[in-house]
Amino acid sequence: MADKPKKPQKLRARLPRGLEDRGPAAIAATRQMVEKIREVFERYGFEPVETPAMEYTDALGKFLPDQDRPNEGVFSFQDDDEQWISLRYDLTAPLARYVAENFDSLPKPYRSYRAGYVYRNEKPGPGRFRQFMQFDADTVGSGSPAADAEMCMMAADTMEALGIPRGSYVVKVNNRKVLDGVREAIGISDDGQWLTVMRAIDKLDRLGISGVQQLLGDGRKDESGDFTKGAGLKADDIALVIGAIATGKAAPSDARLLGSKVGQEGRAELDEISRLVAASGYGSDRVNIDPSVVRGLEYYTGPVYEVELLLETKDEKGRPVRFGSVGGGGRYGGLVSRFRGEPVPATGFSIGVSRLQAALTMLGKLDTRPEFGPVVVTVFDRDRVADYQKMVAQLRDANIRDELYLGNPKNMGNQLKYADRRNSPCVIIQGSDEKARGEIQIKDLIEGAKAAAAIASNQEWRETRPAQFSCAEGEIVAKVREVLARHEVMWN
Amino acid sequence: MADKPKKPQKLRARLPRGLEDRGPAAIAATRQMVEKIREVFERYGFEPVETPAMEYTDALGKFLPDQDRPNEGVFSFQDDDEQWISLRYDLTAPLARYVAENFDSLPKPYRSYRAGYVYRNEKPGPGRFRQFMQFDADTVGSGSPAADAEMCMMAADTMEALGIPRGSYVVKVNNRKVLDGVREAIGISDDGQWLTVMRAIDKLDRLGISGVQQLLGDGRKDESGDFTKGAGLKADDIALVIGAIATGKAAPSDARLLGSKVGQEGRAELDEISRLVAASGYGSDRVNIDPSVVRGLEYYTGPVYEVELLLETKDEKGRPVRFGSVGGGGRYGGLVSRFRGEPVPATGFSIGVSRLQAALTMLGKLDTRPEFGPVVVTVFDRDRVADYQKMVAQLRDANIRDELYLGNPKNMGNQLKYADRRNSPCVIIQGSDEKARGEIQIKDLIEGAKAAAAIASNQEWRETRPAQFSCAEGEIVAKVREVLARHEVMWN
Repeated sequence: MADKPKKPQKLRARLPRGLEDRGPAAIAATRQMVEKIREVFERYGFEPVETPAMEYTDALGKFLPDQDRPNEGVFSFQDDDEQWISLRYDLTAPLARYVAENFDSLPKPYRSYRAGYVYRNEKPGPGRFRQFMQFDADTVGSGSPAADAEMCMMAADTMEALGIPRGSYVVKVNNRKVLDGVREAIGISDDGQWLTVMRAIDKLDRLGISGVQQLLGDGRKDESGDFTKGAGLKADDIALVIGAIATGKAAPSDARLLGSKVGQEGRAELDEISRLVAASGYGSDRVNIDPSVVRGLEYYTGPVYEVELLLETKDEKGRPVRFGSVGGGGRYGGLVSRFRGEPVPATGFSIGVSRLQAALTMLGKLDTRPEFGPVVVTVFDRDRVADYQKMVAQLRDANIRDELYLGNPKNMGNQLKYADRRNSPCVIIQGSDEKARGEIQIKDLIEGAKAAAAIASNQEWRETRPAQFSCAEGEIVAKVREVLARHEVMWN
Repeated sequence: MADKPKKPQKLRARLPRGLEDRGPAAIAATRQMVEKIREVFERYGFEPVETPAMEYTDALGKFLPDQDRPNEGVFSFQDDDEQWISLRYDLTAPLARYVAENFDSLPKPYRSYRAGYVYRNEKPGPGRFRQFMQFDADTVGSGSPAADAEMCMMAADTMEALGIPRGSYVVKVNNRKVLDGVREAIGISDDGQWLTVMRAIDKLDRLGISGVQQLLGDGRKDESGDFTKGAGLKADDIALVIGAIATGKAAPSDARLLGSKVGQEGRAELDEISRLVAASGYGSDRVNIDPSVVRGLEYYTGPVYEVELLLETKDEKGRPVRFGSVGGGGRYGGLVSRFRGEPVPATGFSIGVSRLQAALTMLGKLDTRPEFGPVVVTVFDRDRVADYQKMVAQLRDANIRDELYLGNPKNMGNQLKYADRRNSPCVIIQGSDEKARGEIQIKDLIEGAKAAAAIASNQEWRETRPAQFSCAEGEIVAKVREVLARHEVMWN
C-alpha cells in the first residue's frame, strides 16, 4: 500500500523558554513604575540617553558572573562582515561604549539614565527570565565619593517613590577596596581561591557566620547533604575575614588589615559616603554600610551598593523568605577606559524593574485591578452597521472610549458576554422598534451586575430589567457620560 | 633585535552600522508620540499586550519582501537545544503567535495594541535603521469590513493627534482581492511575473502612468540609463491593469475584470469600507480608496491601507519630495491559522514611529528645544562638600531638580561652564565669606545670558555682576523658586 500523503504539519504556537508575554495589568504597572523612577532620577539631575539593544560583542566585554565558556550568557550572531554582535546583557557596558564614542561632546561629569530590556542567554528558572527590564543611572567622569553617596540616596528615594515604606528596604554599601584589603592582608594570590572567598562572603545573609566560616575553611555540607568545597583558609585568616565582614561600621582590629593601604582607602571612602548621606538627612535605616556586600559583576573597583527589600513573602513551602536584592551598582573604573586608554572614573546604579515588579505584585503594592473596558455599541440589525458605526464615532468624538462589536452579530447574548469580558461599563442597543421611535437603549453593566447579585429569581429579573433604560438618540453622549460618572469610570 | 612588546590594543568604541544612540530630545519626542498614539488606540477600545523581542524562527515565518536567501532580513541564533530563535522583524507575526497560543482565554474579537522595537538585518541606508520602533493595532477574529474601516479612521485620527493637519496626510485603501481579480482577468499563472506586475503598480506614484506602462510591458530605462526588465504583458492586458489601478473609485469597464468573482468581492468590501467611514464623518480627504496601493508584505489577503504624508521636504539636491508612507497595514488571513489549522480572520495597522518621528522632526512639528537642566550647587571649598550636599537635598526635597557639582572643584569657571552646558537655570555658590555671614549666592544663568548680550564691556560686566544676588541660607528654596518662576522653568 502506498503511504498516505501526510497532513501538512500544524505549527506549534509557543514562546522559547525564559520569555514571557505581558498583559494590560503588567504593562500598566511597569509604566507606572518607570514613570516614578524617572521622576526621581530627573530630580537628581540625570538626563536620558538610549542605546540600541545590540552592540559589537567585544565592546560589551565579558563581565557576567560564572561564565566559563566564551559567549555563554549572551545572545550573539555574526554580521555580514563576519563581526560578532551581541544583545546587551546589561545597560552599563553599552553606556561605557556610548560615553567613549561621544566623549568630547558630553558635559562632564556626565549624568545619565536609561530604562530598557536586557537579554541573558541563561538557564531560566522561577522568576528568572531571559529578557527583563532594568533602569539605570550612571555618573561618568567623577571619582568623588559624593557621586556614590548620591546613588545610594537616589536608590532610597526611588524605593519610597515606588511605595515601599522606610524600614522595608535598605541600601547596603560596601567597598571592593575593603575586600581587596582583606585579600592583601591574608595574602591570596590565586584568583580562583579569592573568588571562592568572595562567594562565601556573599552568603553571609543566608548561611550566617558559621556557614561562612565553613565555606572559608574546608567546606560545608548543606541540608540536602550536598557538599560545597571551601576556600581552604587557615583559622586565623578565617577569623580575619569574619572580623572584617561582620563587624558593621566598627574599625577592624586586625593589625594586618589596618596595614593594607587599599583597605584603608576603601574604609575612608565609606566614611565619606556615610558623612555625606548623614548630612542630607539619610539615616542608617535608609543607607547602611555593610561590609558583607560583594555584588556579582566583575567590573566593580570601588564602592558597591545593593538595595534589599526587607519585606517577607512565603516560599513554595510556606516558609517566610526575604525578597532580597532588587537593585544595586557600584564604581567601575575600567569600563570606559578600555576604549579611551586613560582612566575614566564612573559609578552607576541599576534597578531590576522586572524583579521589583514581581516583588511589588506579590506584596500587593501594585494596583492590578483590571481597568474598565470601552463602551460597546452592539449590532442588532446587521444591515444597519453604518448607523451603529456613526454612534461609535459620536461617542469617541466626545472622548469616550468605545467600539463597535465586530464579531458575528447574530446573537445578542454573545455581544453582551463580550462586553462583560472586556469589563465594559455599559452597552448601547438599538433594535428596529427603538429606531422607529428615534431611541436607543443603554444597559448599565456595572449596575446590572450589582442588581443581578441582589435579585432572587429569573422572573423578577425579566420583569424589572434593572439597569437598562431608553433615551433619545440625540442624548447618547450625555446619558453615557451619566453612567460613567455614576460609577466613577476613569480611563488613564 | 627582538620585537618590541606590542602595546595592548585599545578597543574602538563604535556602534554596528544601522544602529543609533538617542539623546534627551529624541527620547522625549518618542515618549510624547507614543503617548498620543496610545490615547487614540485606547479610545478605539484596543488594549495593550506585549510580546518579547525574540521568537522561534519558524513561528515568525518568512514574510519580508525581496528576501531570497533563508534568514536574510532577520537576526537569528541557535538556542542550546539547537532550535533557531530570531529577533522579531515586525509586531504582527509575534501577535499571531500570541493569539494562537492563548486563543481560548482571549475575548474575541480580540483588539490589542503594542509599541516596540523591531529588528531587520538589512543593508542600512539614509533614514533606514536595523532597529526601529513600530506601534501596531490588530483586531483578530473579525472578518467584517467594519474592522478595516475602523483601522483607517484610527490611522487618520492618529495623524491628527500627532499634529499633522487634515489635508497633509491621507489614508489610502485598496484590496488585495481587487488585484487578485486583475491577475485572474489577465490570466497570469507565474508568481514571478505577477510579482513584477505588483512592483510596477507600486511605482505609480513615482513614475506616473507611462512609467508603469513601460514596466508592465517590455521594460523601462531610467534617467541614469539603467534598464529594468518589464512584466512582458500584451497591450490590452496593460490597458486593463492601468484601467484598474488608475480609475480611482469608478468601476472598471473591462468585461474580463467584472467577470472575476474575487475582484468583485474585493470591490464590494471597498464599497462597504467607504460607506462606513462616510457614515462616521470621514471624507475622502482623510480616507480614500486608491486602487494603486499594493503594500509590500506578502501576508495580506484582503483590504490594505497605507498612510501617506503629503507634506513635502527637500531631497539632498534641494528638489521637493513627498515623505510618503509612514504606516499601513491590512487584512491577513493566514498568520494565525498557520498555528490553529482553522481560518482566523484578522486585520491590523502599524505606524512606523521612528520614520514618522524623523518626518515630524524635519517638518518642525516636534518640540526639540532642550529642556532646562537641574540647578547646580557648586563646590567652592572642597572640605565642605557635606554642607553643599545638604543644600542639594534641601532643594530636592522641595521638588526642585538639582545636583551637586561632582567634577574637580578647583576651578569655579569650569563649574559654571558645566552648568551652562546642562542648560541650568541657576547655580548656587557659597564661599567662606558667605558662609561666615550665613548667606549663599544665587547666579541666575538665564538672566545672566540676556544681560551678557546687552553689556558692552568686560569692565561694566565685572562692576555690575548682573543676575547674581545673595540671600540668607534659610531662604534658598524660596529664592530659587522665584528664579524658576521668573523664567517659567517647567520640567516635565
